[in-house]
Amino acid sequence: MREWKMVTTWPANFPGLGSGAARLAELITRASGGRIRVKVLAAGELVPAFETFDAVSRGTAELGHGASYYWKGKAEAAPFFCAIPFGMNAQEMNGWLAYGGGLELWRELYAPFNLVPFAAGNTGVQAAGWFNREINSVADLAGLKMRIPGLGGEVMARVGATPVNLPGGELFQALQSGTIDAAEWVGPYNDLAFGLHRVAKYCYMPGWQEPGPTLECIVNKTAFDALPDDLKAIIEACCQAVNDSMLAEYTARNRQAMEQLVSEHQVQFRNLPDGVLAALKQATDEVLAEITARDAFAKRVHESYQAFQRQVMGWHQRSEHAYYASRRALAG
Amino acid sequence: MREWKMVTTWPANFPGLGSGAARLAELITRASGGRIRVKVLAAGELVPAFETFDAVSRGTAELGHGASYYWKGKAEAAPFFCAIPFGMNAQEMNGWLAYGGGLELWRELYAPFNLVPFAAGNTGVQAAGWFNREINSVADLAGLKMRIPGLGGEVMARVGATPVNLPGGELFQALQSGTIDAAEWVGPYNDLAFGLHRVAKYCYMPGWQEPGPTLECIVNKTAFDALPDDLKAIIEACCQAVNDSMLAEYTARNRQAMEQLVSEHQVQFRNLPDGVLAALKQATDEVLAEITARDAFAKRVHESYQAFQRQVMGWHQRSEHAYYASRRALAG
Repeated sequence: MREWKMVTTWPANFPGLGSGAARLAELITRASGGRIRVKVLAAGELVPAFETFDAVSRGTAELGHGASYYWKGKAEAAPFFCAIPFGMNAQEMNGWLAYGGGLELWRELYAPFNLVPFAAGNTGVQAAGWFNREINSVADLAGLKMRIPGLGGEVMARVGATPVNLPGGELFQALQSGTIDAAEWVGPYNDLAFGLHRVAKYCYMPGWQEPGPTLECIVNKTAFDALPDDLKAIIEACCQAVNDSMLAEYTARNRQAMEQLVSEHQVQFRNLPDGVLAALKQATDEVLAEITARDAFAKRVHESYQAFQRQVMGWHQRSEHAYYASRRALAG
Repeated sequence: MREWKMVTTWPANFPGLGSGAARLAELITRASGGRIRVKVLAAGELVPAFETFDAVSRGTAELGHGASYYWKGKAEAAPFFCAIPFGMNAQEMNGWLAYGGGLELWRELYAPFNLVPFAAGNTGVQAAGWFNREINSVADLAGLKMRIPGLGGEVMARVGATPVNLPGGELFQALQSGTIDAAEWVGPYNDLAFGLHRVAKYCYMPGWQEPGPTLECIVNKTAFDALPDDLKAIIEACCQAVNDSMLAEYTARNRQAMEQLVSEHQVQFRNLPDGVLAALKQATDEVLAEITARDAFAKRVHESYQAFQRQVMGWHQRSEHAYYASRRALAG
């Protein structure tokens, strides 16, 4: 029998991200008949949120649940396995990772860190963020201190904002105290739980910076390689099950939370103006060009990602996107 | 050790639907360390495609992989757990089933048949079908003999077409011989494999009749209830893993097949005109009103489904749909 620790980048019992990690731990424990007993540790319990990667790498914990874009300081290519601004949504990320070569590249990137990554959750399209001022043009972003991690933060810096990375648990206070002026977190379900609507008036959509972030389960490679094949298959199946169920949870809960934010809390949901999105897209292209110019592995990953995205956009324009448009036009 | 048979409604080794069933069988076998050895049987090997439900119900096979809308003759409410015209897409179905009460209703519906259903795959938005004539108005559908199962078939009948249900393996010949004039099957990935482009010129989109059909794994309830808890968890996790991976496979392969159909086979992909979609939507509302008027369980299921869809459409209009639109506008 194995007692395994799962460190996470999420606050204790956090809805969606944390409940996904909790379900993963329970499912592995149940499916293995207790041969692996997984205990979930919230951010800060064993290690701080942003030491999850190192803790699993050195074997302080056998499992970690988080998001690869937190580790861009370790590897420039890491964010591609979570979310790229103006990149792929949940359904497309799953296609690329499982059937487009993405997972193989991810395994190769993490192997030197003694880690085996699995896709283990997705939030779907996020919100662009909570703001206290209206965003009518890119000038309104200038000087804004905004919590926004990953490449989204680099893009915001390029259009004049000041990006900050904070773990989720510190957001409400930072917004309330004025340490930051705006915050991107997840979307209605999580943002309502954090009370962001109490400290910011406008929620802008859609989340250009995180159109379908893949969450990761990282497994210490030494521990994983020592497992018999049935337990390896259980880890694989349970991660993929949670990859499915977390998106389902977000889809179900975001729909309810959005209605509640509008009807009970008078939150104004707005779309970012086209001009702002165009400026962010141009800055994104510049950021990606720099990253791929200085890092050969990021270049390989970006090429694979981009080729998949180009083709899948053609298909989804005719299928998912066309269906959303037709259904809405007919809803009356 | 258990030797379990999985009967399916799919042809042998059929891409996507059949490869999903095959992966499910392998994953259960591996994750259980061989305590359940699952053997997949293609349609017609042990029982014909459309006897899958009965075969698992009576225990001739312990597992079945198919689609609930094939069983509307057994239970009027069955199609709601696969696909409803103008209903929910894959992401929305997963939300409703796992976190919106859908799965509980499905379990209740199938319990008297001694079956436990699990969601175990999705194709994403399908194609509306392959046609030899252009569809410019609803008059072009009159008299058309078209392979289209489930509620989509009833809707087509109401606008003047003659729907036929045939297992996938018989489609090519039926189209080629002129037994049918048009056929709805799945989408580029499968339709290319069947060669439908060789017997029909136009592929119309989007698949209003199947916007995200959930495939099912049905388990004989007597066999399932006799399992220890770890094997029950393995069945649950593996079904959900395949629910995730099959959609990923379709997303990845449809994108490639669509390019191939256009560039190598000169297939014309077209969108159904708004007027045709409006007529189909009106006929759908009539069909659903009749079903829910005559069947109390279908009424309960429809109410749950409809309430979820109404809310999730509000959320997806701001998130997934808005993102598809913005990204496309910026792609240049």
